[in-house]
Amino acid sequence: MGGIRLMIKILNTQSRDFDTLFEQILLRGKQDIEGVTHKASQILQEVANHKQSAILEQVRLFDEWNPKTINDLFITPQECQKAYQALDKDQAKALHIAYERIYSFHQKQKQQTWLDIEDNGSILGQRWSPIERVGLYIPGGKAAYPSSLLMNAIPAIVAGSQSIVVCTPTPKNQTNHLLLAALHICGIKEIYKVGGASAIGLMAYGIENIKKVDFISGPGNIFVATAKKIVFGEVGIDMIAGPSEIAIIADDKANVEYLAYDLLSQAEHDEMASSFLFTTSCEKAKQVAQTIDKILPTLPKERIASQSINNRGAIIVCDTLDEAIHLSNQLAPEHLEILTERPFEVMPKIKHAGAIFLGENTPEPIGDYLAGPNHTLPTGGSARFFSPLGVENFMKRSSIISFSKQAIQSLGKDCSLLAHLENLDAHKQAVLARLDTKQ
Amino acid sequence: MGGIRLMIKILNTQSRDFDTLFEQILLRGKQDIEGVTHKASQILQEVANHKQSAILEQVRLFDEWNPKTINDLFITPQECQKAYQALDKDQAKALHIAYERIYSFHQKQKQQTWLDIEDNGSILGQRWSPIERVGLYIPGGKAAYPSSLLMNAIPAIVAGSQSIVVCTPTPKNQTNHLLLAALHICGIKEIYKVGGASAIGLMAYGIENIKKVDFISGPGNIFVATAKKIVFGEVGIDMIAGPSEIAIIADDKANVEYLAYDLLSQAEHDEMASSFLFTTSCEKAKQVAQTIDKILPTLPKERIASQSINNRGAIIVCDTLDEAIHLSNQLAPEHLEILTERPFEVMPKIKHAGAIFLGENTPEPIGDYLAGPNHTLPTGGSARFFSPLGVENFMKRSSIISFSKQAIQSLGKDCSLLAHLENLDAHKQAVLARLDTKQ
Repeated sequence: MGGIRLMIKILNTQSRDFDTLFEQILLRGKQDIEGVTHKASQILQEVANHKQSAILEQVRLFDEWNPKTINDLFITPQECQKAYQALDKDQAKALHIAYERIYSFHQKQKQQTWLDIEDNGSILGQRWSPIERVGLYIPGGKAAYPSSLLMNAIPAIVAGSQSIVVCTPTPKNQTNHLLLAALHICGIKEIYKVGGASAIGLMAYGIENIKKVDFISGPGNIFVATAKKIVFGEVGIDMIAGPSEIAIIADDKANVEYLAYDLLSQAEHDEMASSFLFTTSCEKAKQVAQTIDKILPTLPKERIASQSINNRGAIIVCDTLDEAIHLSNQLAPEHLEILTERPFEVMPKIKHAGAIFLGENTPEPIGDYLAGPNHTLPTGGSARFFSPLGVENFMKRSSIISFSKQAIQSLGKDCSLLAHLENLDAHKQAVLARLDTKQ
Repeated sequence: MGGIRLMIKILNTQSRDFDTLFEQILLRGKQDIEGVTHKASQILQEVANHKQSAILEQVRLFDEWNPKTINDLFITPQECQKAYQALDKDQAKALHIAYERIYSFHQKQKQQTWLDIEDNGSILGQRWSPIERVGLYIPGGKAAYPSSLLMNAIPAIVAGSQSIVVCTPTPKNQTNHLLLAALHICGIKEIYKVGGASAIGLMAYGIENIKKVDFISGPGNIFVATAKKIVFGEVGIDMIAGPSEIAIIADDKANVEYLAYDLLSQAEHDEMASSFLFTTSCEKAKQVAQTIDKILPTLPKERIASQSINNRGAIIVCDTLDEAIHLSNQLAPEHLEILTERPFEVMPKIKHAGAIFLGENTPEPIGDYLAGPNHTLPTGGSARFFSPLGVENFMKRSSIISFSKQAIQSLGKDCSLLAHLENLDAHKQAVLARLDTKQ
């Protein structure tokens, strides 16, 4: 197949232009939100000013149907229950298994309040409590994924959030019955058929009869991501996510078919998705590229996957496994598969990655659906500082401080000196007022 | 004193217009960042495009001195050491006590990596690791607080961040020797005399010889807060903070002088700061108001404190302690003091507060300096969703998934069904490829 141009490009770390090419790869997923900021702002402003009527207008415009009142935007628990009852047995079982496994993993994430008693009798600690009212944005239409609902709702449920709101667009007023079934399984009762920046506005500001939320999570297109960034501070948000991506570190023992499918499973998401393979084997690189070309025409999403793999995918032939690890750490990928003989020897060297999949029995899609950990992960290199969505996102801490008489007597003078040095006299006096011997 | 107008207003929950007035109070701290967004954006853009020369230009403009090269912007570890050595004994002792107590509290916050083994042999878990390179913004000039440095640096140190950068403005090139001494105690070696939005740009984008950071924390004025919001996503940030505030819940036993000083210690920070007292005693309300008027003229920061207390402070006379608690929960204050007979009976009813100070021996300033918990706290009601700055902010998680052969065999079909239902065929095939019996 020597002369035929392969869909995915193969780079070699030894080639002269590699550093330049890899610089480009590091910039993947950089989205220019400048262009959409103005539009997203405008929509949010509309919602803030005209509330209900703005929401109805936006739904008419973007989802192409005609809700008359806000009541037309509700999805009722009864509809969800019906959708659930209409599932066939295998579907219901698969959704329940996913729910249970995700729930069980997230339960282990739940943070505990603690108090500590000092020798001087003071009590210090921190208390975790759920964020009261949270909003989940779940994409609709062709990308309506019940798995996104599970991954966003379960951490909120485990955290103990009292009220959970879901907004999801329903183009032409078509609901997705699997999403409805998943809403039933999660027991969510407050659901609005609203999408895009207006859904973020609805949740962040509230409208006539719908109270604002405290926190918004969930994936969405660039308008949704931009709107979330704009309302950040007004409410909490999970993260700002861009296109999805995978990196695989493989040695010369890795199964070619697995590698090809795993790269393609990321590519089929989105033309903007990126798939990278770091391999120590030049031979495998070629075989994987050829296998990708063979599989592509068999995929229902061939067009998307081809564009993604062709424009944004790469196989990178590395000198050593350590070089592959080093490059992956620079990439800080959302998903990282380690398909080497001893993946647990590689894992400790990984510095930045949203989720790490070890060994050949762990294809990335297993993490999308039912492994347990969240599939909402930091993209575009933001795994350097963002974490997977988790129970913590739906909780907040309060510090607890109770000084004893002994503690304030012994530490008060040092404290008042520091306040004095910072020129804060009332601070100083507030402390000195508590001391037996004022100075 | 009946006829004399008191500085702080006294409201009564029973009065007809209370709800309207309290609505206004709930909006405290809402900052209009619209106005400064354009300017902050412009400065960031300058830094992104012209790097070093933009930074030098901004320092000349805002800090009114003339650095010739980027080297003029460095504060060296030697300068810090000198400042530390020049401290008198009490000062050094107070700073060390603060450092030790803050360090010890934050150590207890450190999150642990965990792995869990399932019966089917799979390994699931999450790994915590430090954010590699972090930037701390520390205000300078008249509000150069060594305590802010300790509160931002120590969580990063405990988290294990490898490189910690500090930016602080030095108007007229005057450094604050206490801040330098605190930098020495924290062992920070990379320090730049840069402030405002340009400091945020410097840290978020990097310039010629200074690498970008992954995460930025630290307080600042509205330009700094806005710049942090703009770069959010590019880097992580701690939170978006507004003016400082305190609420106190007190019963009729609370000490009037303590209440007055504690309210004033918030007011002296900033004209925009807010101080609220919820009391069940009409009598105490008046006494506290009168005491505030007596203390105000004795404060070096009388002007600031008077403006704050007069325009933005309030004493709210409540019918019952439960009403006081309910109103405080609506406020979600940054600092909350509970000055009642049995504060630990009140605390569990508090839903939202950045830090809770219990009992009369715990004036809020003790938390500003050396109690241990962080003094960087969510303001303006954002305690509903933000947490105090902590070690977690300087760490991130990676999910770990390693499926066993048995696990993929038993769960693969359910997983591939879910992929199929979401129309993601490559996902499905990636899983089926691993099964012994393909379907």
